Amino acid sequence: MPRITFLPQEITIDIDRETDLLTVAEQAGVEISAPCGTNGTCGKCIVRIASGMLHTHDTGMLSPAAVKAGYVHACKSKTADVDVTIVIPERLSKKGKFADSSEDIKKINPELLPEIWQIQPLVKKYHLIVPSAQPEDGLSDLDRFTNSVKAELGEKSVVVPLSIMRHLAQILRKDQGKVTLTTASFENHHQIITVNPGNEIKANYGLAVDIGTTTVSVQLTSLFDAEIKTVETSYNQQIKCGLDVISRINYAQRPERLQELKTRILDTINLLIESIVKTQNLDSSDITNMVCSGNTTMIHLLLGLPPEQIRLAPYTPTLLNSPYFTADDIGINIHPITPIHISPAIGSYVGGDITAGLLCTDIITDSEELSLFIDIGTNGELVLGNCDFITTCACSAGPAFEGGGIKKGMRAAVGAIEKVTVDPSTGIPEIQTIGDVPPTGICGSGMISLLSTLLKTGWIDSAGKLDRTRPSSAIEVKGRQAFYKLSSPDQELIMVSESEIENIIRAKAAIYSACALMLEQVGLSFDELNTIYIAGGFGHFLNLEDAITIGLLPDQPREKFQYIGNASLTGSYMVLVSADHRKKQKELAQRMTYIDLSTETGYMDQYTAALFLPHTELSQFPSVLLP
Amino acid sequence: MPRITFLPQEITIDIDRETDLLTVAEQAGVEISAPCGTNGTCGKCIVRIASGMLHTHDTGMLSPAAVKAGYVHACKSKTADVDVTIVIPERLSKKGKFADSSEDIKKINPELLPEIWQIQPLVKKYHLIVPSAQPEDGLSDLDRFTNSVKAELGEKSVVVPLSIMRHLAQILRKDQGKVTLTTASFENHHQIITVNPGNEIKANYGLAVDIGTTTVSVQLTSLFDAEIKTVETSYNQQIKCGLDVISRINYAQRPERLQELKTRILDTINLLIESIVKTQNLDSSDITNMVCSGNTTMIHLLLGLPPEQIRLAPYTPTLLNSPYFTADDIGINIHPITPIHISPAIGSYVGGDITAGLLCTDIITDSEELSLFIDIGTNGELVLGNCDFITTCACSAGPAFEGGGIKKGMRAAVGAIEKVTVDPSTGIPEIQTIGDVPPTGICGSGMISLLSTLLKTGWIDSAGKLDRTRPSSAIEVKGRQAFYKLSSPDQELIMVSESEIENIIRAKAAIYSACALMLEQVGLSFDELNTIYIAGGFGHFLNLEDAITIGLLPDQPREKFQYIGNASLTGSYMVLVSADHRKKQKELAQRMTYIDLSTETGYMDQYTAALFLPHTELSQFPSVLLP
Repeated sequence: MPRITFLPQEITIDIDRETDLLTVAEQAGVEISAPCGTNGTCGKCIVRIASGMLHTHDTGMLSPAAVKAGYVHACKSKTADVDVTIVIPERLSKKGKFADSSEDIKKINPELLPEIWQIQPLVKKYHLIVPSAQPEDGLSDLDRFTNSVKAELGEKSVVVPLSIMRHLAQILRKDQGKVTLTTASFENHHQIITVNPGNEIKANYGLAVDIGTTTVSVQLTSLFDAEIKTVETSYNQQIKCGLDVISRINYAQRPERLQELKTRILDTINLLIESIVKTQNLDSSDITNMVCSGNTTMIHLLLGLPPEQIRLAPYTPTLLNSPYFTADDIGINIHPITPIHISPAIGSYVGGDITAGLLCTDIITDSEELSLFIDIGTNGELVLGNCDFITTCACSAGPAFEGGGIKKGMRAAVGAIEKVTVDPSTGIPEIQTIGDVPPTGICGSGMISLLSTLLKTGWIDSAGKLDRTRPSSAIEVKGRQAFYKLSSPDQELIMVSESEIENIIRAKAAIYSACALMLEQVGLSFDELNTIYIAGGFGHFLNLEDAITIGLLPDQPREKFQYIGNASLTGSYMVLVSADHRKKQKELAQRMTYIDLSTETGYMDQYTAALFLPHTELSQFPSVLLP
Repeated sequence: MPRITFLPQEITIDIDRETDLLTVAEQAGVEISAPCGTNGTCGKCIVRIASGMLHTHDTGMLSPAAVKAGYVHACKSKTADVDVTIVIPERLSKKGKFADSSEDIKKINPELLPEIWQIQPLVKKYHLIVPSAQPEDGLSDLDRFTNSVKAELGEKSVVVPLSIMRHLAQILRKDQGKVTLTTASFENHHQIITVNPGNEIKANYGLAVDIGTTTVSVQLTSLFDAEIKTVETSYNQQIKCGLDVISRINYAQRPERLQELKTRILDTINLLIESIVKTQNLDSSDITNMVCSGNTTMIHLLLGLPPEQIRLAPYTPTLLNSPYFTADDIGINIHPITPIHISPAIGSYVGGDITAGLLCTDIITDSEELSLFIDIGTNGELVLGNCDFITTCACSAGPAFEGGGIKKGMRAAVGAIEKVTVDPSTGIPEIQTIGDVPPTGICGSGMISLLSTLLKTGWIDSAGKLDRTRPSSAIEVKGRQAFYKLSSPDQELIMVSESEIENIIRAKAAIYSACALMLEQVGLSFDELNTIYIAGGFGHFLNLEDAITIGLLPDQPREKFQYIGNASLTGSYMVLVSADHRKKQKELAQRMTYIDLSTETGYMDQYTAALFLPHTELSQFPSVLLP
């Protein structure tokens, strides 16, 4: 009479004959859901055999690697005549082990994240035992090694770099043939990246990298268990060469300046890696994989590709789908021969940050409900779709929402003003900073909060002009321009000018009008949207009411909105750890239709109408009540 | 009534209905042989359609590239209802265009050489027109480029190096999309090596390289038409680190010395390339392919692989079948990203020089007649076989036959004594030098000639000792050793010592006894051999009678012997220009059985018996009449 044990519940049940595993679980009081009705398609009932065996007649959606690791669909398995221990996998997102600094992943619907059984990075470590050399078998060291690799990883050609071959004789003879290898498995071949004596499969790390026009984030993950270790962010050093993609493209026209831009983004990334490696006590060669997502221009500059054609009709970049280059080819300071995954782009102005970011939304599921995805960065990118269609477009918002182009602007880091409340009568602000420290600048969400409170208290008008008719110690007029002072006299002086307020208005108008036009083009309205995903570098905080008040976001029921943070980075993490998500991203890129707003006649009208707070047509913002 | 024209004969014939092409040729009096009886397997009847068309129902043994170029089997083709011009291809070997310095190829049976329709180097140049960028087709420059490559070269993935991608936008827009590409086509992908605007497909060169323990030869070939341009030879700079492979392996035990050996062979090859590039007025990056053949130790040293295990039981080298590395990986100064073909090795002491050299013999044909292949170098390698079996073994001859280990020894170059006649009564030599210039040294064939004439005139005995009983001005005795003087008093002093004569005796004994033992092992004798191929660095001259007189070669009917020169280099040339020969070489390597003589009990007896001139058992040399 076989005994079935369920972990982590530690519930054991004895059964007397071959029984469906779902039935056994039900009898044992262990919950295993199977919403697809035992079709093997939803993946919700996947469990792992820790010891013993089951009769499984169909591996369903499981990869060969997952099957090898003992994962089965409970709905496709029956008990056998032996004891078995079954582990119900926890969701990755429930493990609660993510680093504090990578809160963004918790904003994502857990169902979208890779399951534990899907963890399959492109580059993995394996432990192998290579048989010793035998007389007259006609096999070289390389033959014995590649035969062992094929036996373990599958029959594909094995590519061993010459640098490794130079130590192979020694490595294979050091620890009785026991070796740890790091391998990237591609469609037609296994690329060997490292071979070392002994067993060290846990020391394998990967990076998810989001390259924004203004900010760059690098996140470290253990590829052994998909646990996020840390994330670091800094400004893109290219900012000195231009604030938005168009000015960078113009700057790159001379070859030495293209080279400079390449060096600047490599320096930005490599400094972040250096810092991570130091704080995590790693060697940079322990990092054997990297997923890089960024807009099309950023990727061109990273690779040293001239971006000129991106801004010239017919707007054809050198590449959209990047092949795998090695870290050494690109100049990234991790293991030199490891392949870098660059998220595929859709067009000249919708890049891999979007195909990564969309992995954080229901647009990639088989839902028919309509979603809008808005990534608010220096470029604003929009995606509208459901399981039937996906359209996308881009607009230029400028760097204002990331603290760029504003004298006292800064990223959402400690010291940034992120919330402002203005006293209706005196016009004097009350501020809140990240980390509750004296202010050193103002971030994007702070600017949105500021404009919203100034508008609601009547201290600015619909055009963004400060009220000069009422005296306030916070308002200072210099020549033709007025300034709004955010700091108290004992603090570092932080002022925002009317022209900086105009920057924000232009940015929000660009995004809102692009959303409106894209919906108009497919004959839909904001009301028909089920979910509006907001992604972008606002840090921990974006006040929805404020964003609607200034007309950045549409005046829709608040429950429709979902803020998902740096979705490009989170999506890159998914692509880093999961083969299924790499596949999904590729399919997604093929399904998307790119709309060029600049050639659409209605866009300028929509944009001009949106250059007011909240909008020329107040009827579009019924819930915004102004004084 | 279609008109059929045959070229180069310029014979035209009108026919009134669909007719077999072989019949038409017969009627026209044009000879096309078809020994396989119209089976399409011998390839002898292959012709090229220059204009018009034929009905061809089977492409037989032709590669897709050859079919595309218009080649057909005459035996599989009928005339159609249109005029057609047929070109009967000349054999490569009949073109008579080979450089003077590469005479070796003329020693080979022309039937073994690649036919013109087989010319298919691994790396080829192609002319392409890539369509210009179109609005909203969703294609990047890279997409359009790879689509064009696939349309031209076949549906495989296209690998474009980042360094090329950086110029792709400019290249594709420079000459209306007209580009010349250099591509290596592998099983699963096309590797792009260069892309340039315009049409430059003729400027494509390759190298065949023979890396010997003592000498290194580099031959330049146009890959456009397989024409050999030049060959240059020099001593292997590794000689300073040891004269034979065992001493090199011992030298390489310290890592810095392995590095030194690698640098020395790279310097040797790169200096030869530099010289060729200069005299041929090329740029080193015009050379986009290389085939390298050498013994297993030489290849290990070239690649920087520790050779230690080659001389330690169970004699397992790091590699036998080398994958393709790039020129840059290895350190060869030709186009850096081009793949290098290294001829496959059979065992620790039978290397790629043999799998290349065998391509010059009937052993690779479907003949049942037995052949013996003897490659006389610092290592002697032997191959015995026919269409049914191939066995191979190696013996250490030392560098004496290449002028090494002999004070006044030299390569077969201008100034080398290559023939000696000794006056029976005075013992005074008459010498002949290469180039008829005053002698500067003596080469291998000169040493063989010297020993033969000294033996026949009685001036040395069977043990190789000079006759001290008769006075001769050519003999000088210093202490316990006698010397034989080859130069006249007005010339540079050239003497050969008795211990140097012993070196030659040991070398010839090693080779002869290995031949005898290998035959004995398969139950055969010298009499059963149909052909004895002699390969090696003897230059233009090896006197068969002399070689038999000293017992280097067996006393067999002279017509059985065929001297094929540097077969490793000629075979490398074939592999360089022909895909069929690359395939043949690979199959050959898989068919060969390696015999380790050092473990055979009879070898020492055979060797000791051969340490006399010509041999202890004179009955084995009935035609050698001694005084």
